[in-house]
Amino acid sequence: MRSLVTLLTDFGTADGYVAELKGVLFTLLPDAVVVDVTHDVPAHDVESGRLALARYWRRFPAGTVHVAVVDPGVGGGRAALAVSSDERWLVGPDNGLLSPALLMPTARAVALTPPAGAAPTFHGRDVFAPAAAALARGTPLDALGATHDAPVIRRTPEPHRTGDGAALGEVIAVDRFGNAITNFVGARGGTVEVNGTALRVQRTYESAAPGEVTAVCGSTGLIEIAVREGNAAARLGLGRGSPVLFRPASR
Amino acid sequence: MRSLVTLLTDFGTADGYVAELKGVLFTLLPDAVVVDVTHDVPAHDVESGRLALARYWRRFPAGTVHVAVVDPGVGGGRAALAVSSDERWLVGPDNGLLSPALLMPTARAVALTPPAGAAPTFHGRDVFAPAAAALARGTPLDALGATHDAPVIRRTPEPHRTGDGAALGEVIAVDRFGNAITNFVGARGGTVEVNGTALRVQRTYESAAPGEVTAVCGSTGLIEIAVREGNAAARLGLGRGSPVLFRPASR
Amino acid sequence: MRSLVTLLTDFGTADGYVAELKGVLFTLLPDAVVVDVTHDVPAHDVESGRLALARYWRRFPAGTVHVAVVDPGVGGGRAALAVSSDERWLVGPDNGLLSPALLMPTARAVALTPPAGAAPTFHGRDVFAPAAAALARGTPLDALGATHDAPVIRRTPEPHRTGDGAALGEVIAVDRFGNAITNFVGARGGTVEVNGTALRVQRTYESAAPGEVTAVCGSTGLIEIAVREGNAAARLGLGRGSPVLFRPASR
Repeated sequence: MRSLVTLLTDFGTADGYVAELKGVLFTLLPDAVVVDVTHDVPAHDVESGRLALARYWRRFPAGTVHVAVVDPGVGGGRAALAVSSDERWLVGPDNGLLSPALLMPTARAVALTPPAGAAPTFHGRDVFAPAAAALARGTPLDALGATHDAPVIRRTPEPHRTGDGAALGEVIAVDRFGNAITNFVGARGGTVEVNGTALRVQRTYESAAPGEVTAVCGSTGLIEIAVREGNAAARLGLGRGSPVLFRPASR
Repeated sequence: MRSLVTLLTDFGTADGYVAELKGVLFTLLPDAVVVDVTHDVPAHDVESGRLALARYWRRFPAGTVHVAVVDPGVGGGRAALAVSSDERWLVGPDNGLLSPALLMPTARAVALTPPAGAAPTFHGRDVFAPAAAALARGTPLDALGATHDAPVIRRTPEPHRTGDGAALGEVIAVDRFGNAITNFVGARGGTVEVNGTALRVQRTYESAAPGEVTAVCGSTGLIEIAVREGNAAARLGLGRGSPVLFRPASR
Repeated sequence: MRSLVTLLTDFGTADGYVAELKGVLFTLLPDAVVVDVTHDVPAHDVESGRLALARYWRRFPAGTVHVAVVDPGVGGGRAALAVSSDERWLVGPDNGLLSPALLMPTARAVALTPPAGAAPTFHGRDVFAPAAAALARGTPLDALGATHDAPVIRRTPEPHRTGDGAALGEVIAVDRFGNAITNFVGARGGTVEVNGTALRVQRTYESAAPGEVTAVCGSTGLIEIAVREGNAAARLGLGRGSPVLFRPASR
């Protein structure tokens, strides 16, 4: 049986850290199928990592082991977690990165004990990779550590209602295309207002003319501000936290 | 039998879109060998993607499925294609990206029908990945859609002859090293003129001194303007479309 | 048996060069497990490549073939090497990149003969990939070329003692996090001085307050200058070659 292990880090690849981690995985798990998710999470940006993880962790088959390491607190007081959730496994630091999996009702987490000699600056190689290999080989979660009851949870902020039937939300992420992803679950026929511009929520980017600003319901169900064949965040000066108002369609 | 599936996109990796696509592939095709070509095509740059695809698609073994998604028109009127060409399969948007394969005399293309529920903003995950998995599992091309007779074709511009025996061409791409790749098929002993500088076409970068501008016949057979251990495009101000004159060697 | 082949290059991925190389590997070695180390080594930066390679080459299982191509002298006079060292194989240019493996006492190197028709500008595709496939298939090293006795060796510079019991070293690399890695092997209780600031060597980044400059013993055993959750190289203006003074703890 092949063992699927995915990797998300903020290490970049050029320094060789990711390769060290992969070398440990292939040594401990010769039949590993190692899948690069990304190593380009902005350095120390746990929130970006969390949002990416939310997208993919359940798209992989049952049994997949997800390694996720964005870990500014490495070697300090934060716990190192192994998690079982919805038939997948995850390992990573206890800083909210793994929240999408931890929030499932049947999720369970244990705190890993760093092996003797683990470098306090590189748990990816010395703690998380060995734990991932152990899980992929069938080691029970409880054999890896003691139950960790209150892991750190990060959540996407919720929009709140304003007096006049609208709701005030925000941009939670800007993707590579400059699409500004909001915290509004897509709704037909509504309007978003951002920086004084009102935009009807459309079905596809192509509903707009090239270069035109538009709002669409994106592939995770959230409303995005986009510019067809352009960069909406740059055009409108949007970033994480920029306020966005949503008005439902009047009937 | 392992199924080789390559991926070229302009998604970057940090947002998790590529990982979603990979999760779908591994779910539908548990024995997949997924090969990252690149996710760093400049956003919406179909032409860069086409030139990269031209380099590699036939270097992979017969039976390989190539997924290529640079798709500014996603969810709009453009067709979604599956292509059979020279014993390989390709899936991607009908915008010229797949031209290198479509131009083969025995190429065949069908238009994919987006599955019910496909996100109109993310055909990579919801249309192209499932089609790639189906092809890798042996589904006949015709089972995936109706023949698509006139796919969009993009071609590298041809140089044209000038009055005096020379030819006027252009830079078609600048690579990571700053080498400016022209549309002249390499010829021994000729000279290229660019921005007023005349350069003899050499055999290797090392024919020049470090830091010196030179012209060589590159690895796809096209003449490149290069600076040994330097960046020719930056030095000479070259970009896609910059004019280049070629003079054959006099006899 | 699966054959593990790792790739380190300075090609980037967007141009398709890496994909050409992968296509050759999978064609010659259908059961290959190709592992991307990095394609983001700065262009022509042999030293960065060497330091990365030093980290990972022995972390992979015995039998792994490492392809490493940072090759400003491609097609010129430098030899193309295949190396056997500590039960791993390596292929790459003879410019010092492979030094970490060549310095092992039992290392052996042969000079590869470029196949007829090899592009003088792309030995990665036409020389190194075929050699890697041959080694992975069990071809003996000596069948690939004649012994190459004096390969180019690059070494990390050694610190030298100053008059007063201290030692003068330097920054040898800056990683993606802005950590400045020195050539001092970590020692408990010492102090480093850099740009007039004295720093006690700590156990982890978390020994410092967020935003504070610190010195830690990094994951390869070398002392690093770091800023907790920040970028030390940017803060202190450090780069490769910046001087660093180390004072052992007084007893």
